[in-house]
Amino acid sequence: MEDKQTINERDFNLSCPIPISEYDTITIAHGGGGTLMHQLIQKMFLSQFDNQYLNLQHDGAILEIDSNKIAFSTDTYVVQPIFFPGGDIGELAVYGTVNDLAMCGAKPLFISLGFVLEEGLKVADLWKIILSIKKAAERSGVKIVTGDTKVVEHGKADKIFINTTGVGKIVAEISPLNCKVGDDIIISGKIAEHGIAIMSARSGLNFETSIQSDTAPLNHIIEKLIKNSDKIHVLRDPTRGGVASTLNEIASIADVGIEIYEEKIPIDEQVRGACEILGFDPLYVANEGKFIAFVDPQESEKVLAIIQSDPLGKDAQIIGKVVANHKKTVIMKTIIGSNRIVDMISGEQLPRIC
Amino acid sequence: MEDKQTINERDFNLSCPIPISEYDTITIAHGGGGTLMHQLIQKMFLSQFDNQYLNLQHDGAILEIDSNKIAFSTDTYVVQPIFFPGGDIGELAVYGTVNDLAMCGAKPLFISLGFVLEEGLKVADLWKIILSIKKAAERSGVKIVTGDTKVVEHGKADKIFINTTGVGKIVAEISPLNCKVGDDIIISGKIAEHGIAIMSARSGLNFETSIQSDTAPLNHIIEKLIKNSDKIHVLRDPTRGGVASTLNEIASIADVGIEIYEEKIPIDEQVRGACEILGFDPLYVANEGKFIAFVDPQESEKVLAIIQSDPLGKDAQIIGKVVANHKKTVIMKTIIGSNRIVDMISGEQLPRIC
Repeated sequence: MEDKQTINERDFNLSCPIPISEYDTITIAHGGGGTLMHQLIQKMFLSQFDNQYLNLQHDGAILEIDSNKIAFSTDTYVVQPIFFPGGDIGELAVYGTVNDLAMCGAKPLFISLGFVLEEGLKVADLWKIILSIKKAAERSGVKIVTGDTKVVEHGKADKIFINTTGVGKIVAEISPLNCKVGDDIIISGKIAEHGIAIMSARSGLNFETSIQSDTAPLNHIIEKLIKNSDKIHVLRDPTRGGVASTLNEIASIADVGIEIYEEKIPIDEQVRGACEILGFDPLYVANEGKFIAFVDPQESEKVLAIIQSDPLGKDAQIIGKVVANHKKTVIMKTIIGSNRIVDMISGEQLPRIC
Repeated sequence: MEDKQTINERDFNLSCPIPISEYDTITIAHGGGGTLMHQLIQKMFLSQFDNQYLNLQHDGAILEIDSNKIAFSTDTYVVQPIFFPGGDIGELAVYGTVNDLAMCGAKPLFISLGFVLEEGLKVADLWKIILSIKKAAERSGVKIVTGDTKVVEHGKADKIFINTTGVGKIVAEISPLNCKVGDDIIISGKIAEHGIAIMSARSGLNFETSIQSDTAPLNHIIEKLIKNSDKIHVLRDPTRGGVASTLNEIASIADVGIEIYEEKIPIDEQVRGACEILGFDPLYVANEGKFIAFVDPQESEKVLAIIQSDPLGKDAQIIGKVVANHKKTVIMKTIIGSNRIVDMISGEQLPRIC
């Protein structure tokens, strides 16, 4: 039977764009949002699943079903610990997918839930997570419409993993490809809070801070922006890999240069201090309730004011702009006046951040 | 901040429809497709996420976006081992979701992929799985349009878990609620092959058979049926929990009785033998390339003939019918002439079957 034919062991290796040896294994860095992960995705996944929808490299795909344009986005959450200052894996899973849909210019409508539960997970913890998911869905205005639950043996997962996949209705044409030279770049608030909150919750690293994850639904504020301006070109939430990785991705996809100003980047003093102690660069630390907007300079001040008028955007700033030179490269003007290349890192500084 | 409020520890327990003690934990049986899993889903999940879409309890949700009707279905695959006789986790993940969409009366169109990779997974194994996913997507006629990859530490997952979520266009009104007294029940082929293939692949249980998983895409054959008959009321693929659990689910949702005839149920002799040796009842063993159709008796012979004309349905049989008495109960007329109640089991006989 044709369908039962196994892949020819001798030939399959030849067809892989990355040479694979018998000894190559997946490392934590392959999931970190950096160059190793991009290599995996570009060379192994995109080379095989090539199609018009996938290649836009958005936070989700834009589908057409009859005349309807629909955004479709998936994420699996493996954050550790599952309860952390300011949130838990349940709300993170809802807001994360809601935000990815919003960043595609969509109004998020429906969410699916796929659980992998580890044998031995406390039922009370699962119940807390379910209540948190419910609250997050209500706050975002999305419906949980379908789900799946799998249980694996103790030691074959880590308490709970949650996949959320979302469907939304496209209401504006937002895409990394719309980015234009001259666009102002806005960040909606203080950076690096989610990553540092997770680190502070991890065993052995409890430093005395009140830093909380910024996990929040961004769809309502995005809806307001889209209603008030048709000059928003790109939207992205700088999650895994942080602001630096997100800007590098956009510079690379849109084939433009990006310039940012260190002094403009909003950051909480406690978060800055924690980053210094831990040796982390906050530009690479994950956010879960912030977005970056690329806006036509004619409307960027207006858009900034709308963002700042929302509690989730009160610390928003214009942090940089799109430039014609140094294509595919992000350069930061530092406080001391020098130019620093803000590279894509090879892997996440903090594994299992989301 | 309202959104950061933690759930009141004293109150949350009261609100759970199942009494929860501090010591209650998730067990393998919670993921088995039996009564424990149904209790978890009904009492804990559905009670919280109550909405018009979720409550149909289909294999997926039927969404309305503007005037479009869209099917939406999710599944996470944790099958162990990841390569087994007749298939692997990659094709299983594609066909499983394709089939769930088809069972909703939809033409499957788009699939998302969410990977959880365990550190240490061989890159060569991942590559084989990607090629298998590609082939399965091509055979089913669906596009892989978006994805996500997470990596967890060695010992925090089991090689690879794959979530697939699918979107399809509704082309026929199929629902467990459409089931009518008098409907004939058709099974599309021999039962229990997937579950037994997995067992034969597991270490320590290699018995000498050529039993292969039946994993296959059912959307093309379903499309043919829908084109040729508008008298198909219900479609379901009897995966986790097997034929027995699927029939119990439908009997319960539609509030009808179901009668099946043991002598009519197609089963391979090797599979029957393996079930006897292992002490499994084949009615409860998972299938991954079979469907059950409830059809108006006026058209059931015609529908059966169409199914039998397809290579994937050549062993199809009418195995029972919907009756007015013994509501919510499945009764089998055995070969020896007795009546046997075919109950819902409390948990899966075989964990991690899909």
